[in-house]
Formats: sequence, structure tokens, C-alpha cells
Amino acid sequence: MTDRRTEILTGAARVIARQGVRGLRVADLAAEAGVSTALIYYHFKDRAGILRHALAFIGHRADRYTAEEEGADAGARPAGPRQLLERTLLLEFQDLPEVRENSTAWGELRAHSVFDPELREDLAAAGAAWAAEVAGHLAELCPTAPPGAVTAAAERLTALLEGLSVRWLSGLLPLRHARGLVREAIGVEVDRLGSPPSPLLPPFPPLSN
Amino acid sequence: MTDRRTEILTGAARVIARQGVRGLRVADLAAEAGVSTALIYYHFKDRAGILRHALAFIGHRADRYTAEEEGADAGARPAGPRQLLERTLLLEFQDLPEVRENSTAWGELRAHSVFDPELREDLAAAGAAWAAEVAGHLAELCPTAPPGAVTAAAERLTALLEGLSVRWLSGLLPLRHARGLVREAIGVEVDRLGSPPSPLLPPFPPLSN
Repeated sequence: MTDRRTEILTGAARVIARQGVRGLRVADLAAEAGVSTALIYYHFKDRAGILRHALAFIGHRADRYTAEEEGADAGARPAGPRQLLERTLLLEFQDLPEVRENSTAWGELRAHSVFDPELREDLAAAGAAWAAEVAGHLAELCPTAPPGAVTAAAERLTALLEGLSVRWLSGLLPLRHARGLVREAIGVEVDRLGSPPSPLLPPFPPLSN
Repeated sequence: MTDRRTEILTGAARVIARQGVRGLRVADLAAEAGVSTALIYYHFKDRAGILRHALAFIGHRADRYTAEEEGADAGARPAGPRQLLERTLLLEFQDLPEVRENSTAWGELRAHSVFDPELREDLAAAGAAWAAEVAGHLAELCPTAPPGAVTAAAERLTALLEGLSVRWLSGLLPLRHARGLVREAIGVEVDRLGSPPSPLLPPFPPLSN
């Protein structure tokens, strides 16, 4: 990606996190990124193009900071699937301006898609890729679990994260508590996937009704 | 509540579900409700007052439709705590215009609070009341579970529901599948609360970091 494209998308994430998707005007974005509106149209064609590329850009940033080690000496030993799983999910909650801005912009794009189907396909693809990553770690942790159960657990963990993220970003849920709930949720799901089915309660009833 | 107040708040929910919180203008609301802007200001003082009362109104509507029996003969026998719990959570997903509108407006008020702290206290109180209701059913189902574990499970179930609701409303998740995931989540949490702690993995690790 050229520097100018990166600058425009960085600006788009910042404007969306500050003013929402409805508040993203190409003229404001041009001022934010220090470029002309013509250059923005040249790179991204129209407002829909800006939003689609901003979504991908924000997703890649999240991939990066949820894959990083926390702390100075954390990289000393290779991480197992449980650590990779916790990292992927817990590092969505970090009290860093970049993470907060990224999560705010991502949540806003998601919330906006309730009103405007424009980003639906891109959001569906991004959500599926994220759930597949989580499912991969779960399957490695719980090799005897049926694939359908693993997929459902991954869908629940990622949806839980989205719900908790909005609460965290709006100041309703402290960061530590959000992380504690996610860590427990991983434990609950992993324990269930790893344990044999209970005779009284089937672990994954059919999706009826 | 007087008829006029109800009409105004019904209109507010409709406008928020259609145009978002940022799109709620008092003049539009007056047109929607068929009243004068002066009457709206008389009843709700200002825009913040409208939003706060709309939030409460939407919450009460959700309380009503998540407490109702589904189907014609469902009321034949009294519901146990498991049924009450499933009803409270699953009836958030119904393919009815009123439920869709209500969930859209509620989700939008929640998403908007990331940008504007105005509704934070009201959302916190509504969220706490909802989690307490869910925790009450869980405690009845799992009487030996520690209260802290019950509260955490209720927080997770309600946050999961919020995450799934956005996916459902934006067309990313079919209704049946959303319900299936919630029903399984209830099973996973109830099973865990009801089962003795595993010797290998503590069921509710402390909320560190």
C-alpha cells in the first residue's frame, strides 16, 4: 500500500472513531489526511470504496495488535493454542489509544451495517475469518470435539467479544473485568468441548426453533 | 403514561430505528408522532430527555415481549427457571416488526453511547437490571453455584446476546442460528455452574489483568 493510501485510511479510521460513519465526509477526511478530495476519489472511487477499504485496514490493524506478545519478556517461549486463543481475544481489550480508536471504528462500522447493507459482505467475510481463526485454536486445544461444536463455540466467543467491546468502549465495563469475563468464557467453552457429553443434558442440542 | 407521551415515545423508537440517534430531530419526531414540537418539549424538556425516556420505553417493551409465551398452547403449564431463562434471552430474536424495531433502536442507543456519554447511567442501570434478572433464573437453576460465578455467567449471556443481536439485525446471522447459539450458551453456562470444579482447570479463575 502506498504511503498516501495508508495516510487516507488512517485518517478514515480516526474520523469514523470520532464522528461515526454518518459523520465521515470526504472533505473532512481530506483535511484529516492532509490530501485533496480528488486524490481520495482517485484511490477509492467513492464513499463506499473508502468505507470498504477502511474496514479492511482496521481489520488488519486488529490482526496485528492481537497477535503481539504483551509485556517485555513474553516472547521467551513459543505460545501454545490456549495462549494464542487468549491472546487473539483478550488483546482486543487494551488501554491504548490505537486499540481504542480501532475498536471504536470497527464497532461503528458494524453498528452502521444495521442501517445500511453496503458493508454486509465485507463484514461477513471479516467475521468468518475471525471465527475461523478462533475455531482453529479451539480445534487444536480440543482435538476430539466435533467440528460443528467447535465452530459454534468460536461464533459465541467472537460475538461475546463484540458485545463486551461496546460495553467497554462506552464506559460501562472496566477493561480488567471485560478480560476476566472473556478468559472465563474461553475456560467454559474449552472445558465443554474437551469433556465427554453429559448423559442428562446433550452438550449441543440441535438448532431447532 | 398519557396517550400523548406514549405516542411521542413510540414515534421516537421508530425514528431511532430508522435513522439512528444522530438522525433524531425534534421536528421529525413531531411529524412522526403527529404532535407539535412544543408538546414534545413540554413532556420531555430537551433532546436528552427524549432519549432517556425513549430508552426506558424501549426497555419496557422488550420486558413485555420477552416475558410472553410463544405459540398458542404454551401457557398450559407454569414455566420453570430454565424455561424462563430461555424465554428471557431467546425472545429477543423474533421475526416481528415490533421486535426488530425495538432491538434496532436499543442497539443504536447502545452504540451511540460509545460516542456520547449522555445515556451512560441509564444504560448501566438497564443493563444491570437485565443481568440481575438472568442471574436470578441461573441461581434458581444452579442453587449451589457461588453468587460471583452466577453474576459472571449472566453478564456473559447478556453480552453475547447484544453481540448476536447486531449480527442478526444487520443480516449476517439467521434468526434460527442466533437462537441455537444462545440456547447452547445457556446449556454450557448452566452445566458449568451446576458441575463440581474440575481438578485440572479452575472453573472461574480470578479476574486478574
